[in-house]
Amino acid sequence: MTVRVVVPYDAADPKTRLADILDAEERAAFGEAMLQDVVAAIDAAGAEPEVLATASVDLSVPVTVDDQSLTPAVNTVLADATDPVAVVMADLPLATPAAVSRLFDAQGEVVLVPGIGGGTNAFLTRSAAFRVDYHGASIQDHRRTAAPLDGAVTELDSFRLSMDIDEPVDLPEVLLHADGRAATWLHQRFTLETQDDRVTVIRR
Amino acid sequence: MTVRVVVPYDAADPKTRLADILDAEERAAFGEAMLQDVVAAIDAAGAEPEVLATASVDLSVPVTVDDQSLTPAVNTVLADATDPVAVVMADLPLATPAAVSRLFDAQGEVVLVPGIGGGTNAFLTRSAAFRVDYHGASIQDHRRTAAPLDGAVTELDSFRLSMDIDEPVDLPEVLLHADGRAATWLHQRFTLETQDDRVTVIRR
Repeated sequence: MTVRVVVPYDAADPKTRLADILDAEERAAFGEAMLQDVVAAIDAAGAEPEVLATASVDLSVPVTVDDQSLTPAVNTVLADATDPVAVVMADLPLATPAAVSRLFDAQGEVVLVPGIGGGTNAFLTRSAAFRVDYHGASIQDHRRTAAPLDGAVTELDSFRLSMDIDEPVDLPEVLLHADGRAATWLHQRFTLETQDDRVTVIRR
Repeated sequence: MTVRVVVPYDAADPKTRLADILDAEERAAFGEAMLQDVVAAIDAAGAEPEVLATASVDLSVPVTVDDQSLTPAVNTVLADATDPVAVVMADLPLATPAAVSRLFDAQGEVVLVPGIGGGTNAFLTRSAAFRVDYHGASIQDHRRTAAPLDGAVTELDSFRLSMDIDEPVDLPEVLLHADGRAATWLHQRFTLETQDDRVTVIRR
């Protein structure tokens, strides 16, 4: 199957909800490390990732710059597509080649991967009619908009793809479960601490 | 494969970390609804769940009362076992028969399912030597203790089994992704609200 795989990336001010724990420069470095992990997982799964960025970013894979916001930028890709399209968010440093392969191989005209907190962390559409709306609890909107399309809407059950890194409370998952660039970057600066059965990260 | 499937349940004071949003009576009702959802998913996956509770609880499946804390209670089960044993936590209302079946079918001498925040939400052991320690970031301990056992340690990648419901921030996931007793109970009392791209639950 030929599938076009697109990774949207906000190069301007990534990961603002991590501002309580990382400064702007750190957020940029960590965001780019996560992006590179996602790109590497897709590449290792045998696909050719393209990055759809809001501004120029230096990567070894093709980068398209589109300064539209996320929803119209992704819908432009979907409107132009002739083959199936997969869209995988850039803040999934737990992504593995196996998890990405499961997305590509999943049955369904539209395959949705929810994100924790109601988002849509990834999807694969074999329908030319599917469009996205990333505002709010987008997984609910995407279930609704995909339902009337010809063919089944399915969901992929993957912790590694559902676990997006948005807030400080998410950072332990990177230290616990990832081993790529984002994990290396974070391990150099933070360590896990367990208090009252809750795991957090603290500065080294 | 014959597999013994055990669901530990704290019947005394369940879900204390939900105390900011649910009173004691509500926590008991919600905790029991989640337990029933987990039991139903295991049953629908073709296995025969047993509940290992700290006190008597009225269910349609066998209940063993053991007032030991979680770790020694589970290790007592493991020490007595002759067949493979799966242990699935009671606070996984997103569990589906498909997700539970993937655990039973997974390759590996020990199959671990991490929980968000470093816990171990479920496991399957085909080794008689595996023991648990649920303190702190237990997934790290379980990886370490399982590694020297004869055979591969694997992990199952499942959002539905990794998403345990411990804190108020976890409750939206029940409304977004579950449709069993816990979801029904919660829908009657709470509704989703989206603010600044974060989803929360608020009282109706």
